[in-house]
Amino acid sequence: MSVYEKLAALEITLKAPAAPAAAYVMYVQTGNLVFLSGHLAKNADGTIIVGQLGKNVTVEQGQQAARNIAIDLMGTLQQACGGDLNRVKRIVKLMSLVNSAPDFTEHHLVTNGASTLLGEVFGDAGKHARSAFGVAQIPLGACAEIEMIVEIA
Amino acid sequence: MSVYEKLAALEITLKAPAAPAAAYVMYVQTGNLVFLSGHLAKNADGTIIVGQLGKNVTVEQGQQAARNIAIDLMGTLQQACGGDLNRVKRIVKLMSLVNSAPDFTEHHLVTNGASTLLGEVFGDAGKHARSAFGVAQIPLGACAEIEMIVEIA
Amino acid sequence: MSVYEKLAALEITLKAPAAPAAAYVMYVQTGNLVFLSGHLAKNADGTIIVGQLGKNVTVEQGQQAARNIAIDLMGTLQQACGGDLNRVKRIVKLMSLVNSAPDFTEHHLVTNGASTLLGEVFGDAGKHARSAFGVAQIPLGACAEIEMIVEIA
Repeated sequence: MSVYEKLAALEITLKAPAAPAAAYVMYVQTGNLVFLSGHLAKNADGTIIVGQLGKNVTVEQGQQAARNIAIDLMGTLQQACGGDLNRVKRIVKLMSLVNSAPDFTEHHLVTNGASTLLGEVFGDAGKHARSAFGVAQIPLGACAEIEMIVEIA
Repeated sequence: MSVYEKLAALEITLKAPAAPAAAYVMYVQTGNLVFLSGHLAKNADGTIIVGQLGKNVTVEQGQQAARNIAIDLMGTLQQACGGDLNRVKRIVKLMSLVNSAPDFTEHHLVTNGASTLLGEVFGDAGKHARSAFGVAQIPLGACAEIEMIVEIA
Repeated sequence: MSVYEKLAALEITLKAPAAPAAAYVMYVQTGNLVFLSGHLAKNADGTIIVGQLGKNVTVEQGQQAARNIAIDLMGTLQQACGGDLNRVKRIVKLMSLVNSAPDFTEHHLVTNGASTLLGEVFGDAGKHARSAFGVAQIPLGACAEIEMIVEIA
């Protein structure tokens, strides 16, 4: 299946990236690498998913939030690809920031919500390097934020 | 206006990078990408701006600290460019770490202090991708630390 | 001395990378850059070094943990190089996450445990850019996590 057949099978519709919350842009391409800005966890209606893992957000909720971020990242990536995600050669790396209470240590499980979806959609090209860790806070109180580096054709 | 005319109009004088605080270098070039090390928030006299947002540093003070970091990053970048910032093709990405109390959520506003200045100095070439978030602490207690990736000619 | 003579002089034996703890891979190569995933601090037997700097891990213990991570990173890098670390052109950048109590500010000294070893093994090619900072928590409670970007031939 192509990327778009997989997205359709998963009933995922990509959106154009939201306007950045501040003085930056959502992605920059240099050579054949696209650097995507940190994307905040959002609900389908665009509102921020606020909270902290280990305090008032469960691992399962965090995984769903990370999956939502991956969908938004793919929307931004589609724009970077001039509308065609088939130009994606490789998801290179994610950096996943999890809003964490002092004793929460399952950032890797939360981040799998994004990593698994990228693997489902892009297959071998979706296998990426990754760092995931717990941060003190995230802009607007979001429970997670993920940035991504992608090689495109 | 050229980059240097803009810096002059802003009354900004760039300095050579400070010696790194530990066993690393302030930047590495690979291909046409320059990776700049995390730069700590400093006053004009080189002392660290110590503190935590949401505790004893205001958003306005944090923005000024982020602006100071951007000036230091440009000083390092100038050295990486062999003295000529006109070789900058694109500011690719910032990672901005804000020393944050548990309930501080305006890291994006703090980081704008750096992003806005880069936009003023480099124009379209200064429009960058970005991640900003709150960390538990920063070396030497600095209130912010920013690293940068730049494409040069 | 070659890289392998230096490793032998330091009595360091590299291992194949451990399986990732989640849905990702330990490194991705794009062009001549290798992006290595965040590696967690581990003892020689592969168990996680759990703890927090400023609470129950000393700077000296943290430096040893960072050194252990650098050894594991070199093991992964060796695999990325098809078994030959002499293909390393430049260690480009480290991002070092230190599990930090709220008042711990010596992340740079902890991270030197990794940076110094990379300098010893790779010489000038080991001089890297770096960001080091304190995070709220790390997967599995590890006291440190380091990711790395490397240029190879």
